[in-house]
Amino acid sequence: MTDWFTEKQTPHLGLTLEVKRRLFDRTGPYQRVEVMETVEFGNLLVLDGCVMVTDRDEFVYHEMIAHPALALHPNPERVLIIGGGDGGSVREAVKHEAVKSVTLVEIDQLVIDACREFFPALTASFHHPKAQVLVADGFAHLDDHPQAYDVILVDSTDPVGPAEVLFSPAFFHKVRASLRPGGFAVFQSENPFLMGGIIRKMHQDLRPLFGQVALYLALIPTYPGGHWSFTLCADQVNPAQVLPRPLSFEDSLKYYNQGIHTAAFQLPGYLRRLLAP
Amino acid sequence: MTDWFTEKQTPHLGLTLEVKRRLFDRTGPYQRVEVMETVEFGNLLVLDGCVMVTDRDEFVYHEMIAHPALALHPNPERVLIIGGGDGGSVREAVKHEAVKSVTLVEIDQLVIDACREFFPALTASFHHPKAQVLVADGFAHLDDHPQAYDVILVDSTDPVGPAEVLFSPAFFHKVRASLRPGGFAVFQSENPFLMGGIIRKMHQDLRPLFGQVALYLALIPTYPGGHWSFTLCADQVNPAQVLPRPLSFEDSLKYYNQGIHTAAFQLPGYLRRLLAP
Repeated sequence: MTDWFTEKQTPHLGLTLEVKRRLFDRTGPYQRVEVMETVEFGNLLVLDGCVMVTDRDEFVYHEMIAHPALALHPNPERVLIIGGGDGGSVREAVKHEAVKSVTLVEIDQLVIDACREFFPALTASFHHPKAQVLVADGFAHLDDHPQAYDVILVDSTDPVGPAEVLFSPAFFHKVRASLRPGGFAVFQSENPFLMGGIIRKMHQDLRPLFGQVALYLALIPTYPGGHWSFTLCADQVNPAQVLPRPLSFEDSLKYYNQGIHTAAFQLPGYLRRLLAP
Repeated sequence: MTDWFTEKQTPHLGLTLEVKRRLFDRTGPYQRVEVMETVEFGNLLVLDGCVMVTDRDEFVYHEMIAHPALALHPNPERVLIIGGGDGGSVREAVKHEAVKSVTLVEIDQLVIDACREFFPALTASFHHPKAQVLVADGFAHLDDHPQAYDVILVDSTDPVGPAEVLFSPAFFHKVRASLRPGGFAVFQSENPFLMGGIIRKMHQDLRPLFGQVALYLALIPTYPGGHWSFTLCADQVNPAQVLPRPLSFEDSLKYYNQGIHTAAFQLPGYLRRLLAP
């Protein structure tokens, strides 16, 4: 008898992973948090039934949420990450020499606890001298920190449950207000093939707030549709047209590089049409 | 009770699709051929248990196997497709004005019959004046047609069963010998995240035969890992560095465009290292 975990990515589509051992399963005030050891992808973090992180392909998501904005911003000293309690985005952000501080605001202590135990290679970043970890509400944190950050990464779960508000126009306004002049914001923005409507709505809500709103893509095998989108917002710089700063540590990365940066902003015809204003 | 079809993409990973109706299930001399109507992706063609084509995302595979080579070749008059009995690759190839003939060589009549019945929008291309459909062995066809084609597309199934020989060095030699001078060959080359070893071996075997061997990627939700690779081979032109000819019909395509063409050849760090000679 083998044990399989299946994520219903839509009501009619699922990804199923063979599980060696169930390691953690607890439901806290915000969500159910599970960790399993899979045969193919190493340890797997599941929140409310959705795949969040696997040991084997987490590098794609974390490199791609962090490096495009940090390589475009001329001097990203202060970075805020909302969500991202697994620590992967902090790990990537602290690599940039220009970055002086990375503040992580994760609402759910249970996620942090589970990841500390089962994803130590990611949460090790919490002890980096540049990193500060707060268990708090992202909304309230933004209210208390106007014009405070050069780059804000919204490393949220899907727009159901605790992260639903992170897809609301009110939240986008607060992110905008917490950016310093010339700042960049990045939102994880779901799979464009299966959830195009969400992205279209996000972009409609973000365009009045930012001069430039650009979608980019990354290949993540365990996420719905096998690829994921991020939305990069800036005031003036068109992120799809500006060349990124070369990164001194590029050779140590597993996904991101200068070629990938530029390529990621190129969209297939169906997506260009979906996002046409 | 709902009905689900699951493809074991690896022994430990599966994609599962809800099925409305089972439409076709016959095993012929080469393979088992199934067609189902799914809830999320329309009609689905399954060969020996593997997802081949769905109505909803077939455009990605077919546009991306055909257009990069056809947009790079200065005058692709004669095109050969080996495999591809669903007709999607023929549909794309005949769109090019320079193309005068497209020969499809599919070994399995059963695939053609099933697709004629359940994928009429794809097999309609068989009646195009430029198209010729042969039910024959690709190996033998190549032997009989030395230096005959400007572009050869190897639109095969996975390297098990009838298509196993299409991943052999002997086959690569025959493809090379059937190209006219300056010709291009494209091989579907599996998912690089899950089946990197196959691609590495293919490239090692192809490099002695062609001056240029380049991998490119496309996002295909129903394929293992959610993305797929193709290998483009040429004598002199480095396909990753030459700009493609603009296509008059680009606006009618759903995936391919000039931006995507260039972006598709940009590889993540882990793939650059996998393919380093």
